[in-house]
Amino acid sequence: MSDAPVAPKTDAAAQAARVILGRLYAPISDELAQVERMYRAELTSDDPYITNLLAYIEDYSGKKLRPALLLLAGKTCGRLTRDHIVLGVVAEMLHTATLVHDDILDDALLRRKRASINALAGNEVSVLLGDHIFSHAFELSLDASTPVGAREFSRAMAKTCFGEIMQVHNRNHFELGEQKYLQIIEGKTAELYATSAMLGAHYAGADEKTARAFYDYGMNLGRAFQIMDDLLDLLGEEALVGKTLGSDIEKGKPTLPLIRHLAVAPEPAREAAIAAARGNDRPRLLRLLHDSGSFKYAAGRAGAFVAQAKKGLEVLPPSELRDLLCEIADFVLSREL
Amino acid sequence: MSDAPVAPKTDAAAQAARVILGRLYAPISDELAQVERMYRAELTSDDPYITNLLAYIEDYSGKKLRPALLLLAGKTCGRLTRDHIVLGVVAEMLHTATLVHDDILDDALLRRKRASINALAGNEVSVLLGDHIFSHAFELSLDASTPVGAREFSRAMAKTCFGEIMQVHNRNHFELGEQKYLQIIEGKTAELYATSAMLGAHYAGADEKTARAFYDYGMNLGRAFQIMDDLLDLLGEEALVGKTLGSDIEKGKPTLPLIRHLAVAPEPAREAAIAAARGNDRPRLLRLLHDSGSFKYAAGRAGAFVAQAKKGLEVLPPSELRDLLCEIADFVLSREL
Repeated sequence: MSDAPVAPKTDAAAQAARVILGRLYAPISDELAQVERMYRAELTSDDPYITNLLAYIEDYSGKKLRPALLLLAGKTCGRLTRDHIVLGVVAEMLHTATLVHDDILDDALLRRKRASINALAGNEVSVLLGDHIFSHAFELSLDASTPVGAREFSRAMAKTCFGEIMQVHNRNHFELGEQKYLQIIEGKTAELYATSAMLGAHYAGADEKTARAFYDYGMNLGRAFQIMDDLLDLLGEEALVGKTLGSDIEKGKPTLPLIRHLAVAPEPAREAAIAAARGNDRPRLLRLLHDSGSFKYAAGRAGAFVAQAKKGLEVLPPSELRDLLCEIADFVLSREL
Repeated sequence: MSDAPVAPKTDAAAQAARVILGRLYAPISDELAQVERMYRAELTSDDPYITNLLAYIEDYSGKKLRPALLLLAGKTCGRLTRDHIVLGVVAEMLHTATLVHDDILDDALLRRKRASINALAGNEVSVLLGDHIFSHAFELSLDASTPVGAREFSRAMAKTCFGEIMQVHNRNHFELGEQKYLQIIEGKTAELYATSAMLGAHYAGADEKTARAFYDYGMNLGRAFQIMDDLLDLLGEEALVGKTLGSDIEKGKPTLPLIRHLAVAPEPAREAAIAAARGNDRPRLLRLLHDSGSFKYAAGRAGAFVAQAKKGLEVLPPSELRDLLCEIADFVLSREL
């Protein structure tokens, strides 16, 4: 669609976030640039139409958090090798593939302030392009010196899909319960963070216990990230966040603030919230969730996961890089920036 | 959709095909049964909803041609190992994943005479379920004793997706040309046959030249298979074939008979065919293509690829299994059975 809405490309908040990330990523800036170069080099084709599509989604991924985690974990545990570059690219490609397919799932019109690929090229091409990127990512993962990365990433992706299916299956099931919500976000989001961090440590020669600590760090970071993402979907400004907002409510996707509200609010406020969600009355829903303290609760849960992420890193000897990993965890909480 | 049309489950033609395949698969029947058992065991989940979805698509794949080729190639070249079983399951899972996603692409309502998974569970779940099966297939491929299978299958799938994207991109472009049509079907269909046959030989210890011969055999078989499949879409009886037919015309997908017709028919018959295709007037289109000899031409091209497939096997010493591979090639031509 040529008439898909495209929001302005930059704004002060995004620039501020970039400055912070620039500082946090400083110790791995060379390697991250290598990841970006290899990522671009891998997303090519002999066919000009396909090459255009691939070029279009090149900057789909934004913050490059997954490769950054992989590289920082590796650097913290020892030294970075070619395996880290290759697997950093794989992490980013797998994430990109899920974004391309998420656009189909969500019927999203905006992604990173540009028309999403399915608005541009249709659902069919989006499915196939995502499939291509998945396959190519798996192919690339076999370029690492051992098959551990390929195995872990394919396992992680299989779990990611299950998490997303459970989410679709529980649509309009607002009384899902916090436990099930967590299970869903662990699958659909946190697993790929956890696996990236773990592989970074593993390929730097870390022992199993340390690799496991990084897995847990990534898992907690991912949980916090998704809770914040869901909060932003309810509370954020579209122009700021750069993607279609409020779509969780519209899609009947129960997220933590509403789940919490339904668990604690008195009967009339419960029913009112369900009615507001079903009727896609966002202002009314926001007021209700605010009054029951549910936004505060959700932000608190995200904060607790960040605290857990930082605590888990205490198995490592103190270092500047360890401090940086803690700062990255804190950054997840400031995502409204 | 609960009201999706479901055609009768069996018929005489399908039973006849099964009898023939039963004979052709006889030398590998034990191993094929192992593949089927492992395939079923792999498609499971802790979640009852997902388990139901996976059970539903268990018999999506029909003739099991890809694992059968892999096993027969292996048996012809030496002996079958656990690698053959594992990679046979992978071939079938990858094929299943593409079918699940094809249903989205084609908006197909029928698949193997049952409601397709997207009619049953929606596009979103179909995308995710296909992604899960892809990921899980790649994970499983790493259980083989070397990474060759994982590498070749991921490369093949990346190419398969490109073939499918080119097909979508050339929709309503009826004057595509035979060369481009062949390039598309080589990607979307033949590559997975070729890779399956090649890996069967490779994992039985065949040298590179022999493995390459099997790759070419599978490639030619796949080309013939897809040409026949496209012919059936135009000519077949829905009740016989067990899937929605005529959808290629409806979708503006140019296939060989029409491509040939446009290359050889005089001007009025060319324009009439394009009008009939655009207007989805199947009876008129069939008459025109028949009159220009285009069906005969397409069947002849399929026959030529089958002949090439058989000829390529002459590098092997004569054996009963080699003869069987020739019979399987011939079987592709009799698919209206």
